Amino acid sequence: MNPIKIIIAGPRGRMGREAVNLVTNTEHFELTAVLDHKFDGMMLSDLEGFQSIANVPIYTDIDICLQKIEADVLIDLTTPEAGPHHVRTALNYNVRPVVGTTGFSKEELQEFEELCKQKELGCIIAPNFAIGAVLMMKFSQLAAKYFQDVEIVEMHHDKKLDAPSGTAVKTAEMIAAVREAKKQGHPNEKETIQGARGAEYDGMHIHSVRLPGLIAHQQVMFGSDGQSLTIRHDSFNRASFMSGVKVAVETVMKHNGFVYGLENILD
Amino acid sequence: MNPIKIIIAGPRGRMGREAVNLVTNTEHFELTAVLDHKFDGMMLSDLEGFQSIANVPIYTDIDICLQKIEADVLIDLTTPEAGPHHVRTALNYNVRPVVGTTGFSKEELQEFEELCKQKELGCIIAPNFAIGAVLMMKFSQLAAKYFQDVEIVEMHHDKKLDAPSGTAVKTAEMIAAVREAKKQGHPNEKETIQGARGAEYDGMHIHSVRLPGLIAHQQVMFGSDGQSLTIRHDSFNRASFMSGVKVAVETVMKHNGFVYGLENILD
Amino acid sequence: MNPIKIIIAGPRGRMGREAVNLVTNTEHFELTAVLDHKFDGMMLSDLEGFQSIANVPIYTDIDICLQKIEADVLIDLTTPEAGPHHVRTALNYNVRPVVGTTGFSKEELQEFEELCKQKELGCIIAPNFAIGAVLMMKFSQLAAKYFQDVEIVEMHHDKKLDAPSGTAVKTAEMIAAVREAKKQGHPNEKETIQGARGAEYDGMHIHSVRLPGLIAHQQVMFGSDGQSLTIRHDSFNRASFMSGVKVAVETVMKHNGFVYGLENILD
Amino acid sequence: MNPIKIIIAGPRGRMGREAVNLVTNTEHFELTAVLDHKFDGMMLSDLEGFQSIANVPIYTDIDICLQKIEADVLIDLTTPEAGPHHVRTALNYNVRPVVGTTGFSKEELQEFEELCKQKELGCIIAPNFAIGAVLMMKFSQLAAKYFQDVEIVEMHHDKKLDAPSGTAVKTAEMIAAVREAKKQGHPNEKETIQGARGAEYDGMHIHSVRLPGLIAHQQVMFGSDGQSLTIRHDSFNRASFMSGVKVAVETVMKHNGFVYGLENILD
Repeated sequence: MNPIKIIIAGPRGRMGREAVNLVTNTEHFELTAVLDHKFDGMMLSDLEGFQSIANVPIYTDIDICLQKIEADVLIDLTTPEAGPHHVRTALNYNVRPVVGTTGFSKEELQEFEELCKQKELGCIIAPNFAIGAVLMMKFSQLAAKYFQDVEIVEMHHDKKLDAPSGTAVKTAEMIAAVREAKKQGHPNEKETIQGARGAEYDGMHIHSVRLPGLIAHQQVMFGSDGQSLTIRHDSFNRASFMSGVKVAVETVMKHNGFVYGLENILD
Repeated sequence: MNPIKIIIAGPRGRMGREAVNLVTNTEHFELTAVLDHKFDGMMLSDLEGFQSIANVPIYTDIDICLQKIEADVLIDLTTPEAGPHHVRTALNYNVRPVVGTTGFSKEELQEFEELCKQKELGCIIAPNFAIGAVLMMKFSQLAAKYFQDVEIVEMHHDKKLDAPSGTAVKTAEMIAAVREAKKQGHPNEKETIQGARGAEYDGMHIHSVRLPGLIAHQQVMFGSDGQSLTIRHDSFNRASFMSGVKVAVETVMKHNGFVYGLENILD
Repeated sequence: MNPIKIIIAGPRGRMGREAVNLVTNTEHFELTAVLDHKFDGMMLSDLEGFQSIANVPIYTDIDICLQKIEADVLIDLTTPEAGPHHVRTALNYNVRPVVGTTGFSKEELQEFEELCKQKELGCIIAPNFAIGAVLMMKFSQLAAKYFQDVEIVEMHHDKKLDAPSGTAVKTAEMIAAVREAKKQGHPNEKETIQGARGAEYDGMHIHSVRLPGLIAHQQVMFGSDGQSLTIRHDSFNRASFMSGVKVAVETVMKHNGFVYGLENILD
Repeated sequence: MNPIKIIIAGPRGRMGREAVNLVTNTEHFELTAVLDHKFDGMMLSDLEGFQSIANVPIYTDIDICLQKIEADVLIDLTTPEAGPHHVRTALNYNVRPVVGTTGFSKEELQEFEELCKQKELGCIIAPNFAIGAVLMMKFSQLAAKYFQDVEIVEMHHDKKLDAPSGTAVKTAEMIAAVREAKKQGHPNEKETIQGARGAEYDGMHIHSVRLPGLIAHQQVMFGSDGQSLTIRHDSFNRASFMSGVKVAVETVMKHNGFVYGLENILD
């Protein structure tokens, strides 16, 4: 089997560095070039932290890169500004995009879907590549068909500004999509200190714990007569995203069409 | 909608009492009779603990019961001795069995499958009706496709004799059915006290905690680079089985054919 | 060693029944009488649920009971109305009270303390006899000296009306007594759904989960650089209170003086 | 208040780097020199990773260092070979040692205790500086007085070679020191797969989970009638040790005498 030839856009970011590690350490993957906004014409091994990685040229212009370098997949881990142009261009050069960048507009998503059909290519955009987190959300949605009562407790380091976390809200949305809305708790329950029962989303309650030392954790708890079912994800570091990138690269080579969200390729 | 008419076999056992509660407290269910090995001709309300339940006659002969009493479903919570005869007879009277009894032989299961086809009826036999436990096993099997590394920790009261628990072994079997066998842990790992790494099943490790006060708990832990995913079920009392019985009764009315195992009707 | 002779007030309540079990099943304890507001002159074995318990007379008048029956300890599990009179009377008859009743006034507590000194007797009043819960609170207070950042997540069945639970508030009070108040979380944190960050008590956050199936659970989480410490108590049923009653009975025989709160006799 | 003047031995090790961070970022601490086995005469800021740290000279000879540099405390994070000589020499120069190095002999510990008395100085040697882990062990020992039944589940990354972990064994030793030995579980319990019930230590059971992604976690579970008490420590990274080093430095300045084990200065 020939290795899958891969270009990484954004190799020096925190996710990008993990992706370079992933691609160069996976037997059937091959890193053929990187796209950066600096260092055109240099080699990746010239940059700090990449000294051991041989024969990977750096490009700043995606068109020139895709004309000169053979590639099956573009892994894009850049910015909302650069992302759309990268996806569009890659597809036009018959290269399949796997994208972790967020912030695409509805119009852009439709455009990519159309383009995938025309070109008969695969393209996967995923705001969250941590397979464990995506499975947690997926299982929660499945469980909600049998357990109407559910609460979410998410726990993060105390530098996080927003509460609840994006993953907690996404989980609640996915549950709300399949269960009849239900106002949980006792109809006459009373908060003796305001906020005790947490945030409410479609009748569910979400609780946000913030403590130094923690990283990113969430548990979804279901209860019914005499039992509870708990689904928990702990993310300890950024490496957790890479198992999802790997699955996405393998999937994008096998299945044509546009996919938004890792949950739609895990079955 | 007409209520589903139900006969319960074994109403005085611990599961049977919960089932009587379930059926009499569910709006679209109706308890039309019970089958017992005693008290023929009496009413259920004559027995201790059932005083409030009106108009439910007790039969000891299943044939007479099914000739006289209208029923859609027979819930059987009796013994390995009585079970097979109950299932066979119910199907012959066009009544759909939902069975929590264990210990059927392979031949009996094949016989029932055949009978369901002939009669175009549904029949569900489930050794475990706790939906939460069944979902835990199902989700564990799904997760094992993406996370090869898994350990099971099951926790029970200290009156339990066997370790690991049946549910833990069943979970390991379901995981083994979908993942390539993998000897987990470090190849050179060493137990300085024997047994520390637990029981091994197809390369997975299973740990059995026994403590007074505990009831029945299990967590399945998956790990991969930088993350872990945990699926946990806590069973606090026997009421936990009833949500599964309810789903089974509703499903057996809608789908013909023979089903073994609650996991095959949860989707 | 002579057994400790014990009278139980309130034997038919839920706690009282557990206490009767405890005393009759503990080798060095002996149940010599019970106090009830009914059934004077009957024997405990005449009442439903107590048939197997021999030779325990029922009294409705505490003075007559204490004059006729030899006792070392009175376990009082009655009501706020009856409690104070029982404590006072017991001490006057040189019987040591162990009391689970709540709602005493400050004046009453001072009166009992004085009376204990005069009579050189022990007396223990404890609003919570679950040793595990009391240790959880005590350990939380100890940990708060080294970890300023703490959040409390308490989880109960969804029939509970008030949030947070009394135990959660008591835990927060005990922590607040030893740590400098600290407003936790990021100074600029923002709730995108109101209530996400829970109830605030002295800068700590408390979260109340309510789900059917749950019983009474609490975890206290401490975080600091690179680590977290969690102390959790699960109460599965009322039997959990009895280990505390046992310790209290043994302690009240050995140590004179008045004690309020089980935490003050656990060291 | 004058800052506490500190020398760090072993600044380039993983623990040493954290210690340099701690001391230079704590207001009332001052780093006056470092001891290394290389780079004599250079400044710490000459070395990679320390560029921003001004005015800290490097010494390779502890005698010369202590003659030239004013110091209250020596933090030693070196090797079993260098450690004893560093402790002895520091005390002779009236500098108080705080030591994370392991492997001291009984004779050396006695010698240091004697020396501390003579010189009227404090000295703290601690094999584990993670306050959370030390509190977990201490609380477990306290709880074991009231709950005889306990099991330990420790969870680590799958590169760990030995099972159970050193912390798990230390915890079991501390519990065994205060409770009567008790063979736990059912007297007739039976392992259907060998090892299910884990390692046995003085009647307690210890279970070792190994999974990629995990870091270092332990939970100690106590059970009794109707309740359980769980004490859990999660160590996410090496920074977790620094809160203990900080407490030790502050304590060694206030209390004379020799202390072995962080648990003996936490009260």
